[in-house]
Amino acid sequence: MPTGSDSRALYERVADALRTSIERGELAPGDTVPPEQELAETHGVSRQTVRQALQQLTNEGLLSSGRGRGRTVRSQTRLRWHLSHFENQSNHSADADAWATEVQEQGRVPLQEVSVALEIPPPAVAERLNLDAEQDIVVVRRRVRYVDDVPFQTADSYFPEDIARGTPLMQPKDVSAPGGLLASIGRAQTRLVDEIQIRMPTKDESARLGLPAGTPVAEHMRTGYDAEGRPVRVMITVAPGDRHTLVYELDAS
Amino acid sequence: MPTGSDSRALYERVADALRTSIERGELAPGDTVPPEQELAETHGVSRQTVRQALQQLTNEGLLSSGRGRGRTVRSQTRLRWHLSHFENQSNHSADADAWATEVQEQGRVPLQEVSVALEIPPPAVAERLNLDAEQDIVVVRRRVRYVDDVPFQTADSYFPEDIARGTPLMQPKDVSAPGGLLASIGRAQTRLVDEIQIRMPTKDESARLGLPAGTPVAEHMRTGYDAEGRPVRVMITVAPGDRHTLVYELDAS
Repeated sequence: MPTGSDSRALYERVADALRTSIERGELAPGDTVPPEQELAETHGVSRQTVRQALQQLTNEGLLSSGRGRGRTVRSQTRLRWHLSHFENQSNHSADADAWATEVQEQGRVPLQEVSVALEIPPPAVAERLNLDAEQDIVVVRRRVRYVDDVPFQTADSYFPEDIARGTPLMQPKDVSAPGGLLASIGRAQTRLVDEIQIRMPTKDESARLGLPAGTPVAEHMRTGYDAEGRPVRVMITVAPGDRHTLVYELDAS
Repeated sequence: MPTGSDSRALYERVADALRTSIERGELAPGDTVPPEQELAETHGVSRQTVRQALQQLTNEGLLSSGRGRGRTVRSQTRLRWHLSHFENQSNHSADADAWATEVQEQGRVPLQEVSVALEIPPPAVAERLNLDAEQDIVVVRRRVRYVDDVPFQTADSYFPEDIARGTPLMQPKDVSAPGGLLASIGRAQTRLVDEIQIRMPTKDESARLGLPAGTPVAEHMRTGYDAEGRPVRVMITVAPGDRHTLVYELDAS
């Protein structure tokens, strides 16, 4: 009930109560939100206030927009994407790449589409690979990755052309090798630097990934260095926020 | 120039061209975008198309909305937040906490406001600290962190009450100790698990952090374990995407 010391707007109190119900699982993914009239009576507010609260939770990505039908609670079942051991050499099996292995371990079905191109490196990639953006060429492996048939993330790997030339890295299909493709050509990554930016998707990314309105993404850029300290790959992954939890396990001793 | 094989809408081509100029630094942060008429002539499109392109880039967070005045390029100077060595024991100085040290090293001025409360743990915190959400109590240190006087992130640390009782963790001010506060009371964190979710801010977070419309956040939840494997702290940081790049450096060998 409203009290004199509570400075929140009425609709915010209703939104907070519903958010708590979702966090506690009392309203589970797929559940229809109670009718506006019922919520209005429960909270002792007007239907207009209820509508404001529901709009707020929709903007936060917790409810579907539910045009025509009732609003439902959106699934928050995110893939736990373990980035600290994602590509360690011990984590590869012979017949699946690191990402596919991770998805399968969580009981879900991975699929990826791969295309390969030769390109001028974008400035951020050239800088990290110590390449000349005017003169050098990179081999790009572009992947759209699906989980349970839903487009999940895009992952584009850039390799210096002199490293990739004549190797399986040039094959335009989903290839893998024990320890990873780079290890198989004697260029195992021994150090990784991850840079994560949080932003809204471009229109193109929204279309490719089928993103609902108001869904931000993590742009995850991983630079891999071989044992001699040479940067051998930049991988840029665009991971929608509604489908991923990024996980790092760190030794802090 | 438009060509028959280019399937992008006209406004997308203009947006792509402007985005490239921003990425290359030809349009730098603070610069005013050229007038609509000039852009229309340069690209051979209508002013309406130019306006669509500018709106697209504003939605992506690259341009200010520029009501009344011209639109300007938003600063993308993000703080590089090094999470893999952020709280290692070797990274603390005696007179500043890990975050303040990081900010100072990047030539910027840190400030934090601290408040302390005793609370029932939220479900996600209780679960990670192995506490009973009905019976147990946590000590919460809430911080709003500023960089160069701009509110930058909120960071709330939750400690089991039996660990924090009678220690400097209860002091409602910015306190620090060599090796960190937990180390000073014999509870150094030796293992960290970070879970990162990408989402839109709540209304309350937008207000506290002064977020422009369309600015997503990273919700960074770090659970720290002591040498015996007991979880001793959960820290939840809300980091706006326009102010942070999260960085992890990993040994992959």
